[in-house]
Amino acid sequence: MTLPKETFALVQKHDGYSGTSEGPHIESLDLYLEPATIALPELADGQVLIRMAMASINPSDLHYIKGEYGHPRVKGAAAGFEGVGEVVAGNGDYATSLVGKRVAFTVDPAGSGTWADYAITSAKVCIPVRDDMRDEDAAGHVVNPLTAMAMFDIVRASQTGSFILTAANSQLCKLLTALGRDHDIAPIAIVRKQEQEEHLRELGAKHVLNSSSDGFAEELKNIIRSEKPRVMLDAVANQTSSDIFTAMPNRARWVVYGKLDPTPPVLNEMGQFIFMEKRVEGFWLTRWFMNTPLDEQIRIIGEVQERFVSGKWQTEVGAKIGLKDAMSDLAGALQNANGKVMLVP
Amino acid sequence: MTLPKETFALVQKHDGYSGTSEGPHIESLDLYLEPATIALPELADGQVLIRMAMASINPSDLHYIKGEYGHPRVKGAAAGFEGVGEVVAGNGDYATSLVGKRVAFTVDPAGSGTWADYAITSAKVCIPVRDDMRDEDAAGHVVNPLTAMAMFDIVRASQTGSFILTAANSQLCKLLTALGRDHDIAPIAIVRKQEQEEHLRELGAKHVLNSSSDGFAEELKNIIRSEKPRVMLDAVANQTSSDIFTAMPNRARWVVYGKLDPTPPVLNEMGQFIFMEKRVEGFWLTRWFMNTPLDEQIRIIGEVQERFVSGKWQTEVGAKIGLKDAMSDLAGALQNANGKVMLVP
Repeated sequence: MTLPKETFALVQKHDGYSGTSEGPHIESLDLYLEPATIALPELADGQVLIRMAMASINPSDLHYIKGEYGHPRVKGAAAGFEGVGEVVAGNGDYATSLVGKRVAFTVDPAGSGTWADYAITSAKVCIPVRDDMRDEDAAGHVVNPLTAMAMFDIVRASQTGSFILTAANSQLCKLLTALGRDHDIAPIAIVRKQEQEEHLRELGAKHVLNSSSDGFAEELKNIIRSEKPRVMLDAVANQTSSDIFTAMPNRARWVVYGKLDPTPPVLNEMGQFIFMEKRVEGFWLTRWFMNTPLDEQIRIIGEVQERFVSGKWQTEVGAKIGLKDAMSDLAGALQNANGKVMLVP
Repeated sequence: MTLPKETFALVQKHDGYSGTSEGPHIESLDLYLEPATIALPELADGQVLIRMAMASINPSDLHYIKGEYGHPRVKGAAAGFEGVGEVVAGNGDYATSLVGKRVAFTVDPAGSGTWADYAITSAKVCIPVRDDMRDEDAAGHVVNPLTAMAMFDIVRASQTGSFILTAANSQLCKLLTALGRDHDIAPIAIVRKQEQEEHLRELGAKHVLNSSSDGFAEELKNIIRSEKPRVMLDAVANQTSSDIFTAMPNRARWVVYGKLDPTPPVLNEMGQFIFMEKRVEGFWLTRWFMNTPLDEQIRIIGEVQERFVSGKWQTEVGAKIGLKDAMSDLAGALQNANGKVMLVP
C-alpha cells in the first residue's frame, strides 16, 4: 500500500491565544477554520499515521480553535483532538506493531488533528479498541469517559451520598449520571431546558432541576437539605454555579472543568471557606494523564470499554457530519443536535 | 480565699446571627455590648475560674459580637475569646491542679468570656505560661501564634519560595513575616498605608506593596513573576485579593482566613482552576484544633513560647484599655492604635 503524503483537513486560521473568553459557542466555523489539503510530515520516532473512521467534537475542541484553551493554536494545523481510526503506518517498534489495528486516540501537540482524513499522533496515546465496541463509542473513548471516571473518583473520595452536575445534558454528564446510578451516589442534574429532564431521570438522575424555572432556588435548597451533596462537577462556572455552591453544605467542593458561560461569577459568601471548609478547584484531563500511573490508566481504559460494550454506557449521537460538509453544517449541528456531533471522512 | 460569685464584664446585647456581613469594623461598642455585673455559674466538671490579667482583641471577637462568626451569639454572656490570667478555682483533678498557675487560654462555648474580671473555660484548653513570657505575649498566645504556625505549615507544604500576606500590618502577619524570614521563604506583604511599609521590611518582609498606590498592579505583576508565590494568606477576601490570585502562577492557593472587606469578589478567570490547578480554600483555627493531634499541639505551643521569650516574635501593643473604660474608648483605639489593643481589668 502506498502511504498518503497529504490529507484533507479543517485547518486553523489563527495562531496562539485570542485573549477573549467567550466560551465554546460557535456561530460560524469560518471564523476559525478553513478546509485545505495539507502535507503530512514524515512520522517522527514513536508516531503513527491513522486513517480516520470518526472524530468526536468536544467543548475543548471549540475552546481551542477559538484560542481560549490551555495551550496555543497553530495556524495551518488540522483541528480536532479526538477520534478513532485504523493505524496505517508507524515509526519505531511499538508504533509499527499497531499497524492494522483500530485505535481510539487523542492527538498530542506534535501530531496532526483528527478533523481530517488522516491524523498523526504518538503511538503511546493510542488505545486498541475491542472489536465489539462501536465507532460511535470509540470516537469519544478518551476525553469524556476518562474525565467521567476521574471526576467520579473525586466524588467517591469525598464520601458524599450525592453530587451535583451542571449542564447535565452533555454526553459527559450522562456518563457521570450512569456512574452515580451504578455506585449508589445520587446524581442531582441541573439543566436549562425542560425537555431534557425526563431522559436524565431515565439514565439514573435522582433529581433533575431546571435552572431557568421560577422555583429553582427554592427547589434546589430543599434538595440540598435532604441530599447534602458535597461535590459539584461544574462545566458552566457562572453565577448560577456560584449560588449552588453557596447553598451546599459543609466541606462542599466546587470542581470546575469547563466555562460554558463566559460571565464571571461573584463569590457572595467568602466566610464559608473559613467556617464551612468549602473549596473551589479545577479538573483538567491533561493533568490527570500526567499524574496517574500508566497501569492505573490501563485498568480504567479497560473498564471504559467494558461499560460501553455491556451497555452501561452509550454514546448518544445527535448528528454525523461529513468532513467535506463541516464548514457549512457543523455550527448548526452543534447548536441543534440532541446528542454528540461526530465528523466522518 | 473566698471565690467571687459574680464578675464585671462586657456582655452581649444580642442572640444568634445578625445575617449581615459587614466585617469587623466597629463604630461603637454600644451596638453590641453593655457593661454589667453578671453571676458566675458553678464550675462544671473540668472547668476552671480565671482571674484575668489581660485580654487580647482579635478580629474574630469583633466578627462574633456582630453576629458574623462561625457560631451564634448568646445574649447576656460575656464577650472575649482569649486572654491570660491566674487560675483561682477548678472542678475536677486536672482543673484543680492548675490553681495558682498563670495560663493563656481561649474560652470554649460552655464558658464565660475574657472581657471581664473573671472568666471560665475548660481546663484542657488552658496553657500554662513560662514565667519569662510577658503578659502582653501570653494574652494573645493562642489565636494569632497558633494560626501563624498552622498557616505557615500550609506555606511550607506548598514548597513555594515565597508567599503573599494581605492586610499585612496585623499582629498575625507580623508573626508570619518573622516565620518567613526565619525559614527563608520570602514574605510579600500587601498593606494599604505607606507608613506601614518600613516596619514590615524591618521584620523581614522581602517585598512590601501598597495596594492603594498607583503602580500597585504593575509592581505586583513583576514581583509575582520573579518570586512565583504559590500561597496567599488572605484576611481581606475582596476584589484586590481576587486580582492578586489571578496574577499568581500555576498551582496558586488562595487561603482565606478573614473577611475584613465585606464586598464580595468576582472571579474573573475561572479557567485558571482548570488549566493552572489553582484553588480557593479557607483556614479556621477551631478546625485546626479538632484535626491536629494533642501532642503536635503541645509541641507547637512550646515553640510559640520559645519564639516569644527569645525575641523571635514580639507582640506589638498599640493600646491598653481598662475594662471599665472600654465602652467609651475601645472602638476608637481599634481604629487608631498601631498595634494590638489589649483589655486590662
